[in-house]
Amino acid sequence: MKNTFGSSVSVTLFGESHRETIGAVLDGLAPGVAVDEAFIAQKLTLRRPQGSFSTKRVEPDRFQIVSGVYRGRTTGTPICILIPNENVKSNDYTRLQELARPGHADYAARMKYHGFEDRRGGGHFSGRLTAPLVAAGAIAISALQAKGIFIGTHVIKCGGISDDGFVDLNEDIAHLNNQTFAVLNETKKAEMISAIEAAAEKKDSIGGVLETAVTGVPAGVGEPWFDTLEGVLAHALFSIPAVKGVEFGAGFAIADMTGSEANDALRAENGKVTALTNHNGGINGGISNGMPVIFRCAVKPTPSIGNIQETIDLATKVNEEIEIVGRHDPAIVHRARIVVDSVTALVLCDQLALRYGTDWLGGNA
Amino acid sequence: MKNTFGSSVSVTLFGESHRETIGAVLDGLAPGVAVDEAFIAQKLTLRRPQGSFSTKRVEPDRFQIVSGVYRGRTTGTPICILIPNENVKSNDYTRLQELARPGHADYAARMKYHGFEDRRGGGHFSGRLTAPLVAAGAIAISALQAKGIFIGTHVIKCGGISDDGFVDLNEDIAHLNNQTFAVLNETKKAEMISAIEAAAEKKDSIGGVLETAVTGVPAGVGEPWFDTLEGVLAHALFSIPAVKGVEFGAGFAIADMTGSEANDALRAENGKVTALTNHNGGINGGISNGMPVIFRCAVKPTPSIGNIQETIDLATKVNEEIEIVGRHDPAIVHRARIVVDSVTALVLCDQLALRYGTDWLGGNA
Amino acid sequence: MKNTFGSSVSVTLFGESHRETIGAVLDGLAPGVAVDEAFIAQKLTLRRPQGSFSTKRVEPDRFQIVSGVYRGRTTGTPICILIPNENVKSNDYTRLQELARPGHADYAARMKYHGFEDRRGGGHFSGRLTAPLVAAGAIAISALQAKGIFIGTHVIKCGGISDDGFVDLNEDIAHLNNQTFAVLNETKKAEMISAIEAAAEKKDSIGGVLETAVTGVPAGVGEPWFDTLEGVLAHALFSIPAVKGVEFGAGFAIADMTGSEANDALRAENGKVTALTNHNGGINGGISNGMPVIFRCAVKPTPSIGNIQETIDLATKVNEEIEIVGRHDPAIVHRARIVVDSVTALVLCDQLALRYGTDWLGGNA
Amino acid sequence: MKNTFGSSVSVTLFGESHRETIGAVLDGLAPGVAVDEAFIAQKLTLRRPQGSFSTKRVEPDRFQIVSGVYRGRTTGTPICILIPNENVKSNDYTRLQELARPGHADYAARMKYHGFEDRRGGGHFSGRLTAPLVAAGAIAISALQAKGIFIGTHVIKCGGISDDGFVDLNEDIAHLNNQTFAVLNETKKAEMISAIEAAAEKKDSIGGVLETAVTGVPAGVGEPWFDTLEGVLAHALFSIPAVKGVEFGAGFAIADMTGSEANDALRAENGKVTALTNHNGGINGGISNGMPVIFRCAVKPTPSIGNIQETIDLATKVNEEIEIVGRHDPAIVHRARIVVDSVTALVLCDQLALRYGTDWLGGNA
Repeated sequence: MKNTFGSSVSVTLFGESHRETIGAVLDGLAPGVAVDEAFIAQKLTLRRPQGSFSTKRVEPDRFQIVSGVYRGRTTGTPICILIPNENVKSNDYTRLQELARPGHADYAARMKYHGFEDRRGGGHFSGRLTAPLVAAGAIAISALQAKGIFIGTHVIKCGGISDDGFVDLNEDIAHLNNQTFAVLNETKKAEMISAIEAAAEKKDSIGGVLETAVTGVPAGVGEPWFDTLEGVLAHALFSIPAVKGVEFGAGFAIADMTGSEANDALRAENGKVTALTNHNGGINGGISNGMPVIFRCAVKPTPSIGNIQETIDLATKVNEEIEIVGRHDPAIVHRARIVVDSVTALVLCDQLALRYGTDWLGGNA
Repeated sequence: MKNTFGSSVSVTLFGESHRETIGAVLDGLAPGVAVDEAFIAQKLTLRRPQGSFSTKRVEPDRFQIVSGVYRGRTTGTPICILIPNENVKSNDYTRLQELARPGHADYAARMKYHGFEDRRGGGHFSGRLTAPLVAAGAIAISALQAKGIFIGTHVIKCGGISDDGFVDLNEDIAHLNNQTFAVLNETKKAEMISAIEAAAEKKDSIGGVLETAVTGVPAGVGEPWFDTLEGVLAHALFSIPAVKGVEFGAGFAIADMTGSEANDALRAENGKVTALTNHNGGINGGISNGMPVIFRCAVKPTPSIGNIQETIDLATKVNEEIEIVGRHDPAIVHRARIVVDSVTALVLCDQLALRYGTDWLGGNA
Repeated sequence: MKNTFGSSVSVTLFGESHRETIGAVLDGLAPGVAVDEAFIAQKLTLRRPQGSFSTKRVEPDRFQIVSGVYRGRTTGTPICILIPNENVKSNDYTRLQELARPGHADYAARMKYHGFEDRRGGGHFSGRLTAPLVAAGAIAISALQAKGIFIGTHVIKCGGISDDGFVDLNEDIAHLNNQTFAVLNETKKAEMISAIEAAAEKKDSIGGVLETAVTGVPAGVGEPWFDTLEGVLAHALFSIPAVKGVEFGAGFAIADMTGSEANDALRAENGKVTALTNHNGGINGGISNGMPVIFRCAVKPTPSIGNIQETIDLATKVNEEIEIVGRHDPAIVHRARIVVDSVTALVLCDQLALRYGTDWLGGNA
Repeated sequence: MKNTFGSSVSVTLFGESHRETIGAVLDGLAPGVAVDEAFIAQKLTLRRPQGSFSTKRVEPDRFQIVSGVYRGRTTGTPICILIPNENVKSNDYTRLQELARPGHADYAARMKYHGFEDRRGGGHFSGRLTAPLVAAGAIAISALQAKGIFIGTHVIKCGGISDDGFVDLNEDIAHLNNQTFAVLNETKKAEMISAIEAAAEKKDSIGGVLETAVTGVPAGVGEPWFDTLEGVLAHALFSIPAVKGVEFGAGFAIADMTGSEANDALRAENGKVTALTNHNGGINGGISNGMPVIFRCAVKPTPSIGNIQETIDLATKVNEEIEIVGRHDPAIVHRARIVVDSVTALVLCDQLALRYGTDWLGGNA
């Protein structure tokens, strides 16, 4: 199941950047989940290029739900979402036809697909495919919200500038979900945007780090070996283009702590158990412990840059230079944020359906 | 498939810390792979407590292969490996019976298993279960070596001390695989061991970071969405107890690079393609590109420490203090190294079997 | 993975009878497989209602391949095939809105989907969904033919009339694949059609049995336990609407044989091994033995009939009578034949890709 | 996942006929299910050779549960069951070493495993492996019984003699589960045993048909496409050695019915819905409808017979004759019955856990 993820609730992606239509099939979601097209459209907006510093490629993302939703609610059968590619300019890419773009999948894809791949605009590897992923994720986000589970992600780092950390998770998540460029500190946002613009001027690009919090995940979800909650989340998060690292709780910083610092002491009050700290990011032994699930994703700088780069011709295996002249984003970390939310929601829907059955998310269990 | 990982080549773990026997079933490996019991025993030795600073629990790991190997070679049918628990002292744990150990899975497990879990010695969550995982992994390592694929891991950080980086991968990997406490710089090793001993004296523990290199992975392995090579590796690596972060190539540091720094320029020489740098860790778009696969795992400090900690009683939900008096390791990062190698080998065997068919690893394709 | 089948090569179905579009995603097929739209169209024709005795619902099945095929060949990435529902008359079904149709899934679906299901025209359960399944299957059939693997199915029984058995498999398969109503004996076909027409006049329906032969399957495909070749084929075949039985080789008749009759004696000639009989249908111990794979599927009479039937109202749970007045087929066994071929091809592509790797079917292994 | 079946509740089989130990890992079963070793032992007895007509190989099946059960209840973690092979006489098989036994998997296995397979006693293909499958199944049967779901199977046909059909399912199931040779009509049993003895005297073997009824399966279990309840049951049932056909409800006989006969009219009484007939075997559109689930399995005659048979030498590909002189059963249909019950229970536990969550079978949902 190559382009499919999930066991009880699953998502399948299909499409290429320069064909008529891309899409996703979201399968196994409980019947009865309310589907709000305006909510999906809003999430798609967050994924789109933003501001003066972004690519000029305008993608209206006019999605169409062709199955699995009836009278505003999920039926329980597969939900296919189609998004037409409306602003395709294949000629932008003609010059690159056989030049591998450094940092992209071009060469790896050639070794896998033997030249049969549709390379135009990155083809199946294009970030465009995160659009249907976000549309499917928006439905999953709705389903979780109805069960009191909320997801929020901010750009905790971009261009060397760090955002503030989470303070009040509920408030912070609500705040972030109304933001196009999601940070907790507005001053830092301006600095980050300046950094992105500076990179754009140098025909270069920058990366960043996203931090995600999920509140309301019940304790007892995940498996001790292999299908740990960390493992299944990371598995899915690494398919977001440009993600090169995933860490939970204190993450790599935990390596410098002592056990007495890193262990999260437990306290009970009126039968409710909480941890005094959350260095484990809400997960112990692969299983949720009822604390907020916290993780961070490292996002690399956009590989498409205007600067001249050394590369090879895929067909001739001759050394060449490449100058990518198309429309490209000097940073994608802020746009990747809604993709992280979406993937997280899809994974959690799957895990919760496995744990509590296929009706739970629809409120019929 | 909870305690099973892999699609074409899979591993299933079973057992609890204080029962007679734990084990693993390695299924789907090609027929004809040479199985060397001495090699397996050597790998198990690397996982065992080492040196004066380690737990006094002696685990001889007398493994027994009860199926799937005939006349020294894999048959192609499931390989069951049993390892008896020979040195069980359940009374060490009696006092903890209902006290949740901070940093451990005790509370999360209670919420999942409702008190039916066998808590003795951590039960199914015990690091003991990595023994059969290493035994299965050793067979996978052998299979890969026969195809020219080599894995090496070193403790790149422990107790604030950093090891040197890789210089010559082939030499470094060969060097590491002969080491009990695997570092590239002997001086750093001594400093790390001192740090571990210092933590032990304070009844505390420390963590670290492991860095892994894999050479010889053919280009073209992995999938663009979901079953990315990063995703499947991370999925499995996060089930190693104490791993809280996984990053590939430059990892989180890539967030501070520019595109022109992070992109790995490609060069061809006599038809052979290489990248001038390897910030992407041998993987682009989820697919191997023929460069060494490089990743790092963050390992948290051992949660079992001698210091008194705040916690709750699982049964009564009353606040309590806990003093863990059993035999415990002040650090496990150096022991986790062979578990990382094993898990990596198992994942790669699966991916390669999917890519090239079920005979490939046995040399009959 | 509810509406998805297959591991290395998989198919996902989506859609409902009375929505704009239904479709399938065929994923994991090797890059480089030639895709002939005329061949797909021909297979879809075989699935469509045929002759005077069939439903008057005309379904042109104008399929559109929106991804995964480039310049006439598979790219190796997911192939999404869309088929619009062009001749939907929802009002035909309005009267049935809450009456469960006997023999259909209406009541079972209500218990699963709690009334959120789109019941119009059978919704997701409609035989319409076999159209994209056939389109995906046609591509799989092409891929297999290029490797010398051929599939043919005939109506071996319908309305009490039996077709002749296979004589020369290669000739018979070629013959069947040119036939709309696939039988080996033309006289029997006429009798079967008369029986179907007679049923139609009585506002009733009849069923039948399909027999399938596959030549060219290499020996050594399938698994001893669980993923037996019989098991995976049967798993998929039972999702064809109306199939209630699957048998391999002599099937249920083998229960009346002795071992000396049922065992297929082996003979070798110039290193080529064949069995003198094929009572085991080309499969021993779950694994192909190189002989033709032979199986039969029992297809029940179309549940939609014009006669008045006893049933319940799904909403009120009150006993009612139902008279189904829409357009319906008095038999579907002859149309199900191409669905059987398609499902068989998809399963075999998956099994062969698992066995020989993901490039094999594209000729790049 | 070759030797593993199931998604939420899964079973993995390992072992070979002539090695020390065979076994199964049952994973994912809810915590809190009572495990009664005497009940398991009783089920294993039903699988063992019975009566004067059976093989003389005595297999005491001293099973040992080495994990996943604590204080008489499932913990929710993997249950490993080991069964030593105590009465192995490898020399019986030495003469057959390279002669393929007709009707067995020997030749197919050679093509798959290239001669690395352990052929002794059938190796991994041996019916011996159904012993751990039955032990795992016995736990699943217990779990289902606690939820009011009961399974019963009888030999409906053997040696041309037909047993009576089911009359009162609850009584019949209770009756069958106390029987070693499970039939509903004692006179027929005597005749079947005579037929088996007659076959034994001729150094031949006979087959039969098993009919299974399951009561108490809730309506709404199963999926419309691919993971139909019929499909998943058939998938698993076809791995029972010697099963060559599976049919549900009226099965192949439904092909000769009309729609008005085959459709099961629905009636409601006090809100309880039942069907007046059960030709669909409790399943419509792949989903359980609340009626008893009914199916039949065709079991071929034991392939090991004393008569001289034509075959080939696997190594030399030379035509030979084979005379199998070991200890073999002239029929296995009566022993296969408990294997059918076990496999059915395992599949249902998986489907119910997927539908209602992982706690449901343990009573903690």
